[in-house]
Amino acid sequence: MMTLNTTPHDDGFYMPAEWAPHRQTWMLWPERPDNWRLGAKPAQAAFARVALAIARFEPVSVGVSAAQYANACARLAHPAIRVVELSSDDAWIRDTGPTFVINRRGNVRGVDWTFNAWGGLQGGLYWPWQRDDQLAGKILQLEGCPRYRTGHFVLEGGAIHVDGEGTLLTTEECLLNPNRNPQYNRGQISRQLASQLGVERIIWLPRGLADDETDGHIDNFCCFVRPGEVLLAWTDDPASPNYRRCREALAVLERSRDARNRPLQVHRLPLPVPLLASEDECASIDPVPGSQPRRPGQPLAASYVNFLIVNGGIIAPAFADPADLQAAQILQRCFPGREVVMLPGREILLGGGNIHCITQQQPAGQPG
Amino acid sequence: MMTLNTTPHDDGFYMPAEWAPHRQTWMLWPERPDNWRLGAKPAQAAFARVALAIARFEPVSVGVSAAQYANACARLAHPAIRVVELSSDDAWIRDTGPTFVINRRGNVRGVDWTFNAWGGLQGGLYWPWQRDDQLAGKILQLEGCPRYRTGHFVLEGGAIHVDGEGTLLTTEECLLNPNRNPQYNRGQISRQLASQLGVERIIWLPRGLADDETDGHIDNFCCFVRPGEVLLAWTDDPASPNYRRCREALAVLERSRDARNRPLQVHRLPLPVPLLASEDECASIDPVPGSQPRRPGQPLAASYVNFLIVNGGIIAPAFADPADLQAAQILQRCFPGREVVMLPGREILLGGGNIHCITQQQPAGQPG
Repeated sequence: MMTLNTTPHDDGFYMPAEWAPHRQTWMLWPERPDNWRLGAKPAQAAFARVALAIARFEPVSVGVSAAQYANACARLAHPAIRVVELSSDDAWIRDTGPTFVINRRGNVRGVDWTFNAWGGLQGGLYWPWQRDDQLAGKILQLEGCPRYRTGHFVLEGGAIHVDGEGTLLTTEECLLNPNRNPQYNRGQISRQLASQLGVERIIWLPRGLADDETDGHIDNFCCFVRPGEVLLAWTDDPASPNYRRCREALAVLERSRDARNRPLQVHRLPLPVPLLASEDECASIDPVPGSQPRRPGQPLAASYVNFLIVNGGIIAPAFADPADLQAAQILQRCFPGREVVMLPGREILLGGGNIHCITQQQPAGQPG
Repeated sequence: MMTLNTTPHDDGFYMPAEWAPHRQTWMLWPERPDNWRLGAKPAQAAFARVALAIARFEPVSVGVSAAQYANACARLAHPAIRVVELSSDDAWIRDTGPTFVINRRGNVRGVDWTFNAWGGLQGGLYWPWQRDDQLAGKILQLEGCPRYRTGHFVLEGGAIHVDGEGTLLTTEECLLNPNRNPQYNRGQISRQLASQLGVERIIWLPRGLADDETDGHIDNFCCFVRPGEVLLAWTDDPASPNYRRCREALAVLERSRDARNRPLQVHRLPLPVPLLASEDECASIDPVPGSQPRRPGQPLAASYVNFLIVNGGIIAPAFADPADLQAAQILQRCFPGREVVMLPGREILLGGGNIHCITQQQPAGQPG
């Protein structure tokens, strides 16, 4: 594996927007019975549905443990899906995979952030996490992509969104959380993002959604549609724990300019009605010390913003909620050239995230 | 993964000779402490030396378990070596990996034989072996190469050599052994080889080398140098258990014609003096029921024939034996256009094979 000691910015590399053409999307196969109910079988079915939906638009590589390899191959039988042996500590490749960067000549490299399971021993979701931390390097080596290792800088891919033209969206709640990079202040973190992702302006929303186990990942709350336009999860219910969060974020977005000094047009995407984990859903999850408990009545941070853009499509979660249809319509208006595919998202949500969290796009281009 | 129900022969595919251009060579990282002494550390050093030697000539991919991934990356740090997570039951990828086949248009596919650990429950070397049996499919899926699955036909890659022009060399001792394919007779086995490898003529040597745990693999005894020329391991010591075996083989070779009706020119490659496993070498191997015991005084089937042809080179084992130099000279004469690299082979031999057994070439060309 080629590990570089330079930075993407210095080498002319930057993170492209999610709508830039993909070579493929990466996923992981869910397995751990202390996070996924019923031995992860319902989650595996939901992940397979996502993989098969993406495979209609672009190739998919799915990493799976040796133990689940044969099962995953059988469940993912599709000519555009490649199953690859890869061990991990769970299935959130948005956060554990590499962040791919490109240059103007079409070369592709990857940034391998340090991963600490969303907070390490201060509020992290499980221990140990060393296989997750190895994952990005494994994928880059598999693909032959040179790797930027960020030293001890902790970041999850779900904590950032970019417009591919120099602007990055994130939340203070996550990036300034002392359980990530307590040794760095906001300015130092901004410089890390600038040098690793080739961005020039960072828009800091104060917080993400309430009850999000990630400490407020941006990818469950707000994303770019195209340069100068964002989608923001929204509620008009004053009783919602997100009522103030949405308004705080909107206020920041409305007074922000992007890296090219454009104001931002904000599209509101309704939140579904509050969802809670049921007794039945929690009953079959292995209780294991060191893993995040799953308790009946626990609020689930459901959001339609947690979708993936693929070549020609949008793969978005649905929640059997009256807002599903409205969300689909808004997504279709925002992405008129793409087919919007809504898939059942509850099983993925029960594990702590959604479609964007379980996918990682690899941009088109040649490793180099 | 695309699994085909046709046969390579019917689709215009055939196994190229080892001297045809390679895209890369595959290896596995040795690990099991019940086959390799001292926790496999001396073997790992020897395998790393082989990988680094091959990497001077062509790219190498090395499959390694999750547990040994970081160590393998550190030991194999070279821009032409790619480390890939792949679990296996041991490190003999010649026998467990795919046999790659090509067509005239430069497409590459692979044959995924059934593997039963050199004899299954009738004399096989370990149990279980299901990860070894999965390995060929995993590699083909990784590379995007369509896969031919041979149903229940048991074969190891080390049991065959081809000239790429329709001729295959093998031994009756291995292929007709009732612990491989007892349901098939010689004619049926020949037809399997013809359809899977695109060969037209099979030259059956009666036996391989004595004390070879593989039941007489050809790749430790006799190989093609080019069409119409073979190298045969040889001893003139009437006390050697190989004395008769060499003469039997020579007699067959001298009366054989290849697929193009050429007679065969036979080059003799001396065997090293008989080697035995030492007490010290066996002492630190974990004694595990179900694994091949490693006993002091056990004869080791050392042979210079167990070399690998790479792009521009020959990677051959040496045994700190007076015959090492002579072997190197014969190899250099047989392969005048290639650089002959001799590497210490004893640590690999202690595990039951040598350089050819631990490597698998992937021919140049595009998956398809």
